[in-house]
Amino acid sequence: MKMSNLYMPTLREVPSDADIMSAQLLLRSGMIRKLVSGVYSFLPLGFRVMKNIEQIVREEMDAHGAQEVLMSAIQPREIWDASNRWENFGPEMFKLKDRHDREFCLGPTHEEYFTFMINNELKSYKQLPLNLYQIQTKYRDERRPRFGLVRAREFIMKDAYTFDTDVEGMEKSYANMATAYTKAFDRMGFKYKVVLGDSGNMGGSISHEYIAITPSGESTIAYCDHCDFAATDEVAPANFKMSSSDTQVLPCEEVHTPNIKTIEELEAFFKIDASQFIKTLLLKKEDDSRIFAVMIPGNRQLSLVKLSKLVDVSEDELLMLAEDEIYPLAGSLLGFAGPIGLKENVEIIADQRVFDIKNAICGANKKDYHLINVNLESNLYKIGADLVQVEANDSCPNCNSPLSIDRGTEVGNIFQLGDKYSKAMNATFLDKDGKAKHFIMGSYGIGISRCVSAVVEQCYDEKGIIWPMAIAPYKVLITIVNIKNELQTQKAFELYESLQKKGISVMIDDRNERAGVKFTDADLIGIPLRVTVGKAIDEGKVEFSKREDCVKEEVQFEEVVSKVSMLINNL
Amino acid sequence: MKMSNLYMPTLREVPSDADIMSAQLLLRSGMIRKLVSGVYSFLPLGFRVMKNIEQIVREEMDAHGAQEVLMSAIQPREIWDASNRWENFGPEMFKLKDRHDREFCLGPTHEEYFTFMINNELKSYKQLPLNLYQIQTKYRDERRPRFGLVRAREFIMKDAYTFDTDVEGMEKSYANMATAYTKAFDRMGFKYKVVLGDSGNMGGSISHEYIAITPSGESTIAYCDHCDFAATDEVAPANFKMSSSDTQVLPCEEVHTPNIKTIEELEAFFKIDASQFIKTLLLKKEDDSRIFAVMIPGNRQLSLVKLSKLVDVSEDELLMLAEDEIYPLAGSLLGFAGPIGLKENVEIIADQRVFDIKNAICGANKKDYHLINVNLESNLYKIGADLVQVEANDSCPNCNSPLSIDRGTEVGNIFQLGDKYSKAMNATFLDKDGKAKHFIMGSYGIGISRCVSAVVEQCYDEKGIIWPMAIAPYKVLITIVNIKNELQTQKAFELYESLQKKGISVMIDDRNERAGVKFTDADLIGIPLRVTVGKAIDEGKVEFSKREDCVKEEVQFEEVVSKVSMLINNL
Repeated sequence: MKMSNLYMPTLREVPSDADIMSAQLLLRSGMIRKLVSGVYSFLPLGFRVMKNIEQIVREEMDAHGAQEVLMSAIQPREIWDASNRWENFGPEMFKLKDRHDREFCLGPTHEEYFTFMINNELKSYKQLPLNLYQIQTKYRDERRPRFGLVRAREFIMKDAYTFDTDVEGMEKSYANMATAYTKAFDRMGFKYKVVLGDSGNMGGSISHEYIAITPSGESTIAYCDHCDFAATDEVAPANFKMSSSDTQVLPCEEVHTPNIKTIEELEAFFKIDASQFIKTLLLKKEDDSRIFAVMIPGNRQLSLVKLSKLVDVSEDELLMLAEDEIYPLAGSLLGFAGPIGLKENVEIIADQRVFDIKNAICGANKKDYHLINVNLESNLYKIGADLVQVEANDSCPNCNSPLSIDRGTEVGNIFQLGDKYSKAMNATFLDKDGKAKHFIMGSYGIGISRCVSAVVEQCYDEKGIIWPMAIAPYKVLITIVNIKNELQTQKAFELYESLQKKGISVMIDDRNERAGVKFTDADLIGIPLRVTVGKAIDEGKVEFSKREDCVKEEVQFEEVVSKVSMLINNL
Repeated sequence: MKMSNLYMPTLREVPSDADIMSAQLLLRSGMIRKLVSGVYSFLPLGFRVMKNIEQIVREEMDAHGAQEVLMSAIQPREIWDASNRWENFGPEMFKLKDRHDREFCLGPTHEEYFTFMINNELKSYKQLPLNLYQIQTKYRDERRPRFGLVRAREFIMKDAYTFDTDVEGMEKSYANMATAYTKAFDRMGFKYKVVLGDSGNMGGSISHEYIAITPSGESTIAYCDHCDFAATDEVAPANFKMSSSDTQVLPCEEVHTPNIKTIEELEAFFKIDASQFIKTLLLKKEDDSRIFAVMIPGNRQLSLVKLSKLVDVSEDELLMLAEDEIYPLAGSLLGFAGPIGLKENVEIIADQRVFDIKNAICGANKKDYHLINVNLESNLYKIGADLVQVEANDSCPNCNSPLSIDRGTEVGNIFQLGDKYSKAMNATFLDKDGKAKHFIMGSYGIGISRCVSAVVEQCYDEKGIIWPMAIAPYKVLITIVNIKNELQTQKAFELYESLQKKGISVMIDDRNERAGVKFTDADLIGIPLRVTVGKAIDEGKVEFSKREDCVKEEVQFEEVVSKVSMLINNL
């Protein structure tokens, strides 16, 4: 590709709404463009990266026995009614009507579709197991699209569905897909962790997530360095010891705590550790139908996901109360709420551990007052065994070693669905014994476009992107320092053609631009190998460097092709 | 691919709603499936065919300097308002709203999108010309989806857009794309014609269509065997001589024609040629706002497209009047309408040629009566130079030779858009002289999924599909006659692996089925080359045949690989 022709509208400024590094770099390097919130276009270089990722995924899916198909994005309401997800999927589902007022959605996922299709076609256990996948555009009308390609409303996904005769078969299919995923992500060249996941609205039991480790990631994962435990914070239990020096129960008292609201202020005021406090958080369901007061140990953070499961309200719909909503309920302002004396319509919920705090301190539901020596009776409250976020050094649930915490972006997930969808849609096959049985299913996703971001989040420096070889838009960039110099241009194109003949994807910067502009762009777009043809060509030499370390070395012109080939083959 | 694993749900019955041969065969062979009207899925074999077509198109686009990108399918209303097509596109456009009630459509095409994007990025004439393309899912809510993949509501299209500084540049880009199209369609292996097209709601002036010749096709094309004229019937003029033996104008009379309605009945009754009659057709605009009486020579058929342009009502909205609607207008029943004595609200329109008919015969607007010796005065009517369908043997507009007529399916189109979109959206670049000028654009489409159908319409026999080598899902099918025979199975797999090693795509029928079932399926799915490993393997021989002629020959096992390789390389 000649850069004089390439459509690569780089930006010198960081776009104001690019909220993470990968979005900034992909926009600045002219690889993607935003149309509207959460809707992106792929320009030539970005498109090539995505295709490379697609191809890696395709090869691994094919190698693991999955067959590629392509379903439509629009799906009729009826198949979603069958699984009850037309109503339950919520506002994330884009819905539309055709000219005859028939209702459709833009598929956010395809469990229903595949189950429906298979049910009409596949009759016998002899045709099982079956593994079908597609690489296709998905739609989710995110409440808050953000992080560039990470949380987009239209995005490219690889989704696969397996059909087995029994749970044992499904577990095999699941293990097979897990292997394929590991191989695919290994090839893409970024760091990730496989963690136990939450099944969310997919249903089913066991699931795993593939989390690319990125500081900006929306997911928090906990993992153990001593055993193989790893899970998202949504499912990782927060196991920690409650230390209490008190043994004797003391009488409860009200204490004047003027303007002392936060845990930090309380620690200073009472000269006592945060773990001695009971933090009471007030939340509501978005539609105002329910109000919750949640008690947790003062030194921990509430896990919305864990609360969400306990009270059966989706995480999205759980909102913290605003200051003006608290007063009528708790008779106080923010910072003085507590479990005692709340209005009757408030559902009081407690993390099990608060009952271990002897002589605890909590808000008095009265401005500028706290209660001390509080000893709650556990039978008065709805109790969650674990309602707080997992933290570093909590105990591993498997081996009790201290856990580590990291942040990341979910790039893949795999679900053991069992018969959730086949039962709901009454999708059956005839088993060996001639009886109709429900398919036992699995479903498996990889966020193809999201992977583009995940890679960049890990692979960049202050000058720009550093693409891993396997997914780079081009593997080599030849820069002609001065296109008016005939020898430089001639030799550069000679090299360009030699590399092309070897089947190596190569760009040549033949633009009529200053060398500085070319080098800046080269750093920004992050092609792994770079050959600069400048003055040294008079002595038969060119400059060679790798984007990852930018160490320059002089190389004989004749040796470049073999050097480049070797490096590419080794990676 | 082992057929024991392949998902290929063939059907023995012809699906009742498969209205053309390609739809029947693609459904029966388990290559595609219908979800709802006009919405299809591609199963493994069909998907491979489509990918092969995609790849041919991609290679030719790349070879002709186009750069691949990928835009979103959802597009905000605003960019369509700018070109006025949000309202004008009509009910074919799928529209939807997001959770914030913002309006979007599912892109039926992407002229607006590309113009909008370029305008924000490309500033200088130095960056032109530019040619961008994508292979992407498009949406059109067809009034009547039909013909399988041909007129679907969700379909895969390659669309390209060129941007030039001036008309001359656009014409060059257009010619370049025309070459790419010819190469791509040539490679796919079906017969097609390039014809002058109608620009429809794309705007612009010159356009060409690529029509695959198919008897079931919706398009009619007229072409000249003596020069290079070829056009759709929408634009091909119907040039024909009106012969009239009468010279003297005779007085008009009413004649009793009891129950004589059709042109055929009138010809028999008056013993005179159809060309002496004036046919009067009554139509209305769908919303009842206008009524038309259209006079054409009795021996010709009305062209709705030509009428549509004259009266500026879309073809879809022009409906023939029903019998009960005619009476109050024409005071008569079907068959007796004529230009004289119609109600005032009827717009009377005439094909120019009716004035050449001396002493013509037409309906009297009175049951069982016609008028003879009608000589119309042309200044009383709205006149269209040509309102009838072109027919075989009409004169070529270039060289006057007789035209030929064929039917076909539009698989590609190219449009010279000029500044229609860039002007509407005020998309400009700075020219050499530093002045802002509108981009001069072209747009170019290939119906990728439609091509799958077009090929099958041409390439089949009574037993099934006959894929051209270039796009076949697999090039070779090895059939094991009896999988319980160890030697047959062992040798067949040996061959399978040898071909795979050569990079040849190959299927092996290793299913535990009767040989008859296997051969029937093989004929149906149409793999070009077939090797059958049966009893003759005991003597070291296999049976070889091509799907196109099904001529069987015995071949030494050792020679198969080289024979197959040779045939594939030659095609």
